[in-house]
Amino acid sequence: MPVYADPAEGATVRAHLLRAWTVALLARLGTPGDIATDVAEILVAADRRGIASHGTARLANYVALVDAGVMDPAARPVVEREKPALARFDANNGWGHHASRIAIDWAIERARTMGSAVAVVRNSNHYGIAGWYALRAAAAGMIGMSFTNSSPLVAPTRALRPMIGTNPIALAAPAGRWGTFCLDMATSTIPRGRIEVAARRGEPLPVGWAIGPDGRPATTPEEALAGALLPLGGLEETAGYKGYGLGLGVDLLTGILAGAAFGPNIIGLFATEAPSDLGQAFAIIDPAAIDEPGAFEARLERYFDQLTSAETIPDAPGRVLIPGEPEAEAERRSEERGVAIDARHHASLVELGVRLGVPFPRVTPVR
Amino acid sequence: MPVYADPAEGATVRAHLLRAWTVALLARLGTPGDIATDVAEILVAADRRGIASHGTARLANYVALVDAGVMDPAARPVVEREKPALARFDANNGWGHHASRIAIDWAIERARTMGSAVAVVRNSNHYGIAGWYALRAAAAGMIGMSFTNSSPLVAPTRALRPMIGTNPIALAAPAGRWGTFCLDMATSTIPRGRIEVAARRGEPLPVGWAIGPDGRPATTPEEALAGALLPLGGLEETAGYKGYGLGLGVDLLTGILAGAAFGPNIIGLFATEAPSDLGQAFAIIDPAAIDEPGAFEARLERYFDQLTSAETIPDAPGRVLIPGEPEAEAERRSEERGVAIDARHHASLVELGVRLGVPFPRVTPVR
Repeated sequence: MPVYADPAEGATVRAHLLRAWTVALLARLGTPGDIATDVAEILVAADRRGIASHGTARLANYVALVDAGVMDPAARPVVEREKPALARFDANNGWGHHASRIAIDWAIERARTMGSAVAVVRNSNHYGIAGWYALRAAAAGMIGMSFTNSSPLVAPTRALRPMIGTNPIALAAPAGRWGTFCLDMATSTIPRGRIEVAARRGEPLPVGWAIGPDGRPATTPEEALAGALLPLGGLEETAGYKGYGLGLGVDLLTGILAGAAFGPNIIGLFATEAPSDLGQAFAIIDPAAIDEPGAFEARLERYFDQLTSAETIPDAPGRVLIPGEPEAEAERRSEERGVAIDARHHASLVELGVRLGVPFPRVTPVR
Repeated sequence: MPVYADPAEGATVRAHLLRAWTVALLARLGTPGDIATDVAEILVAADRRGIASHGTARLANYVALVDAGVMDPAARPVVEREKPALARFDANNGWGHHASRIAIDWAIERARTMGSAVAVVRNSNHYGIAGWYALRAAAAGMIGMSFTNSSPLVAPTRALRPMIGTNPIALAAPAGRWGTFCLDMATSTIPRGRIEVAARRGEPLPVGWAIGPDGRPATTPEEALAGALLPLGGLEETAGYKGYGLGLGVDLLTGILAGAAFGPNIIGLFATEAPSDLGQAFAIIDPAAIDEPGAFEARLERYFDQLTSAETIPDAPGRVLIPGEPEAEAERRSEERGVAIDARHHASLVELGVRLGVPFPRVTPVR
């Protein structure tokens, strides 16, 4: 499914119903209610923001991890080591969403008194969209950063095979009249899901998205799926080594710093052979600690006024955007019409509901 | 001059002589010795690391700022607001290098007790290479991040004209046997200096480097120099909006957070019409605060062993590199043979020395 585009056919469901159903489903796995509430909130946030690849469509994968005994649905994170502005959490191989919510809340609280704080998590699982955690800090009036490592899909510059994850970077901050700034980006040029979309549409690929199994630029989705994604920047001549450096930097702040798995040692995406042992990191800064109230937001407002009123290039599909605007727009549409889920996604949730005895709620068909 | 390549013709000079001469030159401008020592150390570090565009070749530009009365060569930074793990410095329109060295040292000291810390600087000037500050943290056993905003040279995705700087990101950490990891990258695809090199060589430009004044991809250096650099990722279809988001994120952490100028409001590079009012930010994390001694470095060593022994693509110019390796190699060469300076750079230093009464030291010609 293309990111930010509504599904061509499918249904909509109210966010609160989707959340409540997810909580009930997770209870059947043995997940305590407070943990399930975090997981449901974060998965449904991805759906609401138009990032279906990271939302409830993944529930079947999470259930498979629990079924295989490689993820503990009831585990609670603990602080292992702590300084006033730095903590390391052990997620105890439980839900990554919950451990990460606990970790970022710790960092937000510490930033209130310290001015800034960092929390890292090891022994964790997939945590959904990186942006959710950064947005939680922004909602508290702070600058939030969120990072996770992930299964190897990206070939470092010059390497033939995937060795690092799409390791996302998220950065959010309160932006006054403009709502919230939220950059939430994989450090690869595009996510793997975008190649799958191109495959379904029979599209050729631009140079810079991926390499084939022979190490040459992939021109078809099939070559790319058998090869590797390229880091942001693409090939070496267009500075792909910067995207590689950023992806490696994310691994340094997560897997390496937290003491989790890293790089080529991370198992495949939702593989059930062993625990994932992912690492996450969160950094928080409180702008109000060093400024007059509202001054930070006022400067961002002025900046965004300038950017969004800038003259555009010929054939631009619209004005200059602020990072996070498309997702915020998807959220508004979800509020109005319900959360859009495509036919395959809907079928997978109905099937999970049948299997675990929690019937999926009624949906509204979309023509 | 191409980054990381030795000049085709010119000379070499010993680093300690270049530093001592720079200190003496700055004294003639009224810069106190301790401040001049910081500036010389950081400018010469750029030359030693093969990044001539950010080193002593810029001295004539700095002198012009002092001559024009828009930079105070004797100013000392002060802490304006402070929390245990966050401080805002006012550079008082003095040397950016010195204010930034003071700020990062504050953050390193705080990170020793707090675990992590952030310092920002406003009312500042150009601070040289972003990587130097991150490396200072790495030398103290810590993870260091360094950011600065800069004069508008990059067109945000869809915008016709330059509105944000090349706003670099630097991240460094101690890497055991591998020395130091040091990512130091502009958030544009390439620096403007690379276009100037292409112009001298009469090279065409790859798509993704720049746009011309008409907003279309620049195919010649002349079009690019009259247009704008593109953010990392290039055009919208190859995810240039991610590089734009990163550049904007750097401005958020520097100009916006510190209360300095930002985006299109920053004056031209080394323009003498007004103070530059740049913003800088530094973030430090102490890995030893949450881990066994040496464990962080041991994991990085293993990661880098894996990356550098990976199978490569056909026609790769060498093995997979670790960020910072080319610069570390240039440093080793400078140690052996002296710092390479090209003919134009050398002439500018000789002329400055004559003008300010500090004769430039003897150099060794390079054939």
